[in-house]
Order: sequence, then C-alpha cells, then structure tokens
Amino acid sequence: MTDPLPQGAVIGILGGGQLGRMLSVAASRLGLRSHIFEPGANPPAGHVADRVTTASYEDETALRAFAASVDVITYEFENIPTSALDLLQDLRPIRPGREALRTSQDRLTEKTFLTDLGLSTAPFADITDAESLTRALKIIGAPAILKTRRFGYDGKGQARIMTPEDAPAALADMQGAPAILEGFVDFTHEISVIAARGTNGEVSCYDPGENVHREGILRTTTVPANLGPKQRQDAVLLAGRILNALDYIGVMGVELFCTPDGLLVNEIAPRVHNSGHWTQNGCTIDQFEQHIRAVAGWPLGDGSRHADVQMENLIGDDLSRLPDLLTEPDTALHLYGKAEVKAGRKMGHVNRVVRG
Amino acid sequence: MTDPLPQGAVIGILGGGQLGRMLSVAASRLGLRSHIFEPGANPPAGHVADRVTTASYEDETALRAFAASVDVITYEFENIPTSALDLLQDLRPIRPGREALRTSQDRLTEKTFLTDLGLSTAPFADITDAESLTRALKIIGAPAILKTRRFGYDGKGQARIMTPEDAPAALADMQGAPAILEGFVDFTHEISVIAARGTNGEVSCYDPGENVHREGILRTTTVPANLGPKQRQDAVLLAGRILNALDYIGVMGVELFCTPDGLLVNEIAPRVHNSGHWTQNGCTIDQFEQHIRAVAGWPLGDGSRHADVQMENLIGDDLSRLPDLLTEPDTALHLYGKAEVKAGRKMGHVNRVVRG
Repeated sequence: MTDPLPQGAVIGILGGGQLGRMLSVAASRLGLRSHIFEPGANPPAGHVADRVTTASYEDETALRAFAASVDVITYEFENIPTSALDLLQDLRPIRPGREALRTSQDRLTEKTFLTDLGLSTAPFADITDAESLTRALKIIGAPAILKTRRFGYDGKGQARIMTPEDAPAALADMQGAPAILEGFVDFTHEISVIAARGTNGEVSCYDPGENVHREGILRTTTVPANLGPKQRQDAVLLAGRILNALDYIGVMGVELFCTPDGLLVNEIAPRVHNSGHWTQNGCTIDQFEQHIRAVAGWPLGDGSRHADVQMENLIGDDLSRLPDLLTEPDTALHLYGKAEVKAGRKMGHVNRVVRG
Repeated sequence: MTDPLPQGAVIGILGGGQLGRMLSVAASRLGLRSHIFEPGANPPAGHVADRVTTASYEDETALRAFAASVDVITYEFENIPTSALDLLQDLRPIRPGREALRTSQDRLTEKTFLTDLGLSTAPFADITDAESLTRALKIIGAPAILKTRRFGYDGKGQARIMTPEDAPAALADMQGAPAILEGFVDFTHEISVIAARGTNGEVSCYDPGENVHREGILRTTTVPANLGPKQRQDAVLLAGRILNALDYIGVMGVELFCTPDGLLVNEIAPRVHNSGHWTQNGCTIDQFEQHIRAVAGWPLGDGSRHADVQMENLIGDDLSRLPDLLTEPDTALHLYGKAEVKAGRKMGHVNRVVRG
C-alpha cells in the first residue's frame, strides 16, 4: 500500500473523452484536481478539468511537462502509444499498470492470458496470413469473426466470416494488420462486471449488468442482470482473479458471455467502462469515484447497489429526444457536451432508476 | 416560458466557492458549460469550471466581457454589489431576478416582504440608533438579537442582547451599519425547504430537512425532518407562495422555525443552499441540477426523495477525519478542494444514506 494522495493532488488523465470527463468530476468530488492530456481540440473533459494539455502522444516535451504537473497518471482508453507510456512510466506511477495495458491492447495476448488463468473464452487462433486463416477456420469453423489484434472498439476492425468463402474479403478488411479469428459463441446474453482493486489489494465488484448492443455499439445496460445466484458469484470471483493476476489498480470492465456451459470472458477493458455508467445512479460510490480512489491510493468505497437501473446510451440523433427525457420521472441525464452530433457518436446517456 | 438553452450554452456564475463549484459540475452533467466570475484567486469552482474570470465586481470591462461570453447569469451568494448587477442586467438575463436579490440582501426588506405576504416571522424592528433600539427592546423584549441589515452570514454581524444593559455594546458591534432587532423565537427545531421554480412557473420542492447549527454554522441537515403531515405540507405551500410572489427562477433555500404556534420564516436565500446538499445522494435530481435546469429555461426534474439522509458539514479540522469517513458504508464524500484548512471554514460535507 502506497501513501494516499493528499487533498489538492493532481490526477493526470490520458484521453479527454466522456470517460475522462466523468473521471475529472469524480476527482473534484474528492478534493483532487485533474489534468487532461489529449491530442484532439476542445475535448469533452476539458470543460470540467482543472487543466488541459493539447498535444500529440509523440510530443516528448509535452509529455514530460504533463508528468511533472501530476501526482499519478491514469487513462480513459487502452490504446495509448507504447512510446508515450515508456517515457511516462519513469516519471510518475501509471495506474492501472503496464501489464494490464499490454495484456488488453492485444486481443491475442488478452485471450492467451485469460486461458492461461484457467478461464474460458471463445475459441481463437492467431491469424497472420491466408494460410493460417484457412487452417483456423477448419478447426474453429464458420461462422466466425476476424478481428484486428489491436485498436478495435465499437465494432471497428472486425469482419464476419459466415462461410469459408468470406475469408479472403475478411482478411482484406484487416488491411494487413495482425488479426485473430474468434469462433462464434452460442450465448444467451452478455453481462459486465465492473471490478475495482485498490493499492492494498482489496477488490470490490459492482453487481453485474446485462448489456444489449446494436450495430456493435452498447445500447443499454440493465441491473440486475438475468443471472442465478451461482452465476452471479462466479462472475464476481472470475473478475477478482483477473485483477489479482494483473496486480491491478483501478476499475476494470470485464465483459462475459452467459452460455449453457457457463461464463466465457469476451473481453476486458483496463478502465472505467460504458457498461458501468449505471453506478452513477444506482450506488452511493460510482465507478468513476471508485477508480479515482484506487489510483489515488485511497480505500475503495461502498459500491453496493441500492436500486434497479437501466442505462441507455444516447447516440447521434438520440439527443433530439432530450425534451422528453428531461421530464421522465426518476431519470438522470448525463450529457457529454460534445459540440457536434454525428451518427454513431456517443452524446450522453440516461440512467432510469426503478426503486423497489 | 423562454427558449431553453441549447447544448454547449454557457452558464455564468457569480462567485467561485463550493456552491459555484457544485453548480458547475451540475451544468456539465447537462452538457452545458460554466464561466465563473470571482474576485478571489484560486477559487474552488475554478477547478471544475470551463472558464474563470478573476476580477473585482468594480471592474466594468471584466464584467462586460464576462456577460458577452455567457448565455445567462446566476450566482452562488446574494451579496453581489448593486453596481455590478445594474451593469449586467442590461446585457444578459440574471436568474434568479433582481427582485429576489433586493429582497434577500436586506433583512428588513426581507421580513417586511414576508409579513406583507401574510407569513409569520420573528418580531422585528428597524434600528437606526440607540433611541430606536431602546424603543424596540421595550416592545420586543429581551433576550433579542441585533443583526446588520446586510452582508451577514454564518452568524457574522450579529450580537445577542440578553438584558437591556447589553444594548449599547450590541449596537457598537454593528459599527454604524443599519440594523434590525429580532425577538427570540421559542422554536423546537429549524427546518429548510429547498424550493425550485422554472421559467414556466412550475414549482417543485424537496422534502424539508431538519437543521442543527453550532456556533452559528450549519452542522447537519437530516431528512426526513421531524414534522407532521400537515406541517410538511404547510412548509411546502409557504415556500411556493414566496417563489411565486417573487416571480422567482431557480432554487431558493427557505429556513423555517417550527414553533408550537406553527411555522415562522427565519430567512430566505435566493440560491442553492447548504441545507440542500443532502439531495445529491437522496434524490435522482439534486438541488444543483434543479437550479441549472431552471436558469437554463429547461423543465424542472424529478426531485422526489428516495432515501433518508444525514448531511454533515466538514468544518476546519474535521478534514482530519477523512481516513475514517472514506470507509464508512453508504457514505458519500463531497470535498471542495480548498487549499488551506481554517477554523470555521467549510471544507466539504458527507451525506450518510439510510435506506428503508
């Protein structure tokens, strides 16, 4: 256990999107300040952060100045260039640590880590060329899905292979990037465990939420998830194993498939997670505060759930429903202050609270 | 009803203390930005606001630039210099309006307004000199309390008169400022109604909270307050009358004394109020968001209470209890990021949630 950061300390956050924005607000609630590092202009987190650096991840001078101004470094996305991390890690603690980033930045490394830990995943194979794809399809079978090993999110960098004839086109979609073939999983539904681990090794998990996606983008998360008591406990224990194995500090999103044969790990994200936004209105301490507590070396808070919640993402034109959403009873709005509405862009979310 | 402000609009906030800080955060949650105007350096709200102007209320150039950069102006305290308001009101809407400020800036004007409205207050008299004080003490009797008409808060600018012999010293304490003598009220407890009114005239009140002060400073607010159903309804109706009479827009704190003869109005504050901080963890929409919704011309939100809460202010050295407070179950911390701990200074608060 390291010393907890004092009042007024500065949390450095790599990335200035909505997750960085909500992390900034949580830090302020704890009397801590935030400094955002973000290459893009006018980032959503910039409206609420104490300080913003607009610079590229290749700008070593900016990275050094950023590190010098903060007490600890965390991030809102996992695809941070390795060179930037190499520079920063010598200057300030990075939490969650490099091992978690290395593992989750690459689908092949991640799946190998999970199976080495004795956890179940979809069947997978390393794809380097047409030949390895043909071989993998023979073992895994079609339908299957080809994904780039790195830099995929919200369904990007993925191609479905419904029959072996789709293989060449799918491979071409990867544009030469290293890829992984994943077998389709016969799952009934997807759930997430939002898990936190402190610098002292304590682990705290939120009640699992059930996710519904559309066009590769999360639409809703509902708590409680449709799970039996045994599955619920399995989900939480499994998440705890992952965090402990990585000596993890902070909040992690663990996506699981529920299948007739048990739980499979779909993917892990070493950060606060869209499927944990319900905690803002279903718990006294939400995932953003829990993450800040962890990376600041503070004790984790009470993450017990006190209400049923449905979180709905507001995507693109969904924002035009604002007048109606504002008058719904027991509905909390969380808008990201993004200047421009674009199709598929996450503009905000609502949490609908149902009390027993 | 005026047009609601669009996403990305800017709320100008006069005052950069903890109330301005929590208003800024609420604005961000609704996709709005905030611009703080504050004479003091390094204000708590500055860590979370999109923009801060550090300038005096006499700086006309700064006031004009501030107004030009915002869409509506609100404030976190009522003692804003009149000259600044005169300048600003021609440039942007000020919400709550001038009438509410004029009324609440002066204890004599406020009490006269309330009694004209048919509401009960402590007995009071205008004090201009020793002679008027002697005369008033004969009618009101001792013990009584002498208060400056303007610029009092947290027990400052007040002197108790236990017997008529205390009168000269109490008057000297006023340092020549216009004053008001208030009779002591035989009350059992003090409650607050946090009431909101929108641009369309709709009114929404939070459940009354019960306040405990120590040394003139609020220590705790507890909901539900100890009130019968009739008193609870009276309190809410009475608050509604005040807001309607002032054509009020925004949140107001209404402090009431519970006496054997009914409710007396102690004072009104035309802003979010310390005794409404419990709403952050007891309601889906808290007082800060309700205020921003109102001044932005948006519909008011659902302010129904879903839990029992005790709010405790953290004052001065209370902050040393932080390690214990962080591990209390179902307890939410709200810290203000103030650089320096001082005796009597509000450093933060906790909301302890008790669920049924």
